[in-house]
Amino acid sequence: MAEQKATNITWHNGAITKADRERLLKQKGVVIWFTGLSGSGKSTLANTLEEKLFEAGHISYVLDGDNIRHGLNKNLGFSPQDREENIRRIGEVSKLFADAGIFAMTAFISPYRADRDIARALLKEGEFIEVYAKVPLDVAEQRDPKGLYKKARAGEIKELTGIDAPYEEPLNPELVIDTSEKNLEESVQIILSYLKEKEIIR
Amino acid sequence: MAEQKATNITWHNGAITKADRERLLKQKGVVIWFTGLSGSGKSTLANTLEEKLFEAGHISYVLDGDNIRHGLNKNLGFSPQDREENIRRIGEVSKLFADAGIFAMTAFISPYRADRDIARALLKEGEFIEVYAKVPLDVAEQRDPKGLYKKARAGEIKELTGIDAPYEEPLNPELVIDTSEKNLEESVQIILSYLKEKEIIR
Repeated sequence: MAEQKATNITWHNGAITKADRERLLKQKGVVIWFTGLSGSGKSTLANTLEEKLFEAGHISYVLDGDNIRHGLNKNLGFSPQDREENIRRIGEVSKLFADAGIFAMTAFISPYRADRDIARALLKEGEFIEVYAKVPLDVAEQRDPKGLYKKARAGEIKELTGIDAPYEEPLNPELVIDTSEKNLEESVQIILSYLKEKEIIR
Repeated sequence: MAEQKATNITWHNGAITKADRERLLKQKGVVIWFTGLSGSGKSTLANTLEEKLFEAGHISYVLDGDNIRHGLNKNLGFSPQDREENIRRIGEVSKLFADAGIFAMTAFISPYRADRDIARALLKEGEFIEVYAKVPLDVAEQRDPKGLYKKARAGEIKELTGIDAPYEEPLNPELVIDTSEKNLEESVQIILSYLKEKEIIR
């Protein structure tokens, strides 16, 4: 087994590897990158998936606005450069979590294909799972969990993705989940089935 | 138990908490912040501690130059502002790892007291363990694992901590380990004993 070989080699350097940690945790360290409009269900999917994985003894960590925008990325605004740097840092931190053997889930709109592809390029083949939470704009706007669409329509905020800023759909995401057609349970089951099929979880 | 109470409250919000992850991993998520001169033994201590913890079934992650300077912080140089931002980001990422229930170990010179105290302030009481790898400059210079002292003495690099840039000793670190007096085994044992005493590991 390639995995065990790597373990033996590095063991003598006194350093624990990703493969070692994966063996201990009985899971593969991967990035599950949720992308989609505000109100598409990214955070709900990530948090519910985390809960299901936890019940099965797996360890994940959700990176989202709550723990990133107020901490690591608090010195970034919403200019194009800052948005790019925001996603770049999230990609790099996700990679560290995956290297630690943890499921790193990210729940950000991440509207630009190029930025998501930069994050993907940090990981090995199969370690970056892009989940497109697809939903018609009118459904997202009706949900409006953060009241952003209302504010954008009233002209109180600018450059909201879907209203006056573009969302670039993924061309080849690992998974597409239309949360206006599937309920939460079904949606999460699609991801769990994928993780099992790819032997990322037991 | 306060821990379990928090778990129950948040469970129904569909979010897994730090306490949940700590329960699953059977350890506390803390930051072990190694500081000291180049050649003081920070990385060796961190990697050996990680190995010992791994043998006991614990999961840690070492943040060091290899995985930070070439990734998350690759857009930072060595100006005073960039050095400060470097340590700030490392502090924020450590906090995320601790929140994930992992032992986050950092192995950077981190010469400024103010920067280390900013990292400390991100964590709760008892979650930030500052380990000062103390060693006389002449011993560090003799070890010179990265050849930095030689280059500094030859005038090839500037502002090396200990030579022409200051190192501010911690005033109240949780642990001080003089790696010129204690061998690696003894040094790591001091940290392990501390973690057991504080019930961070079993």
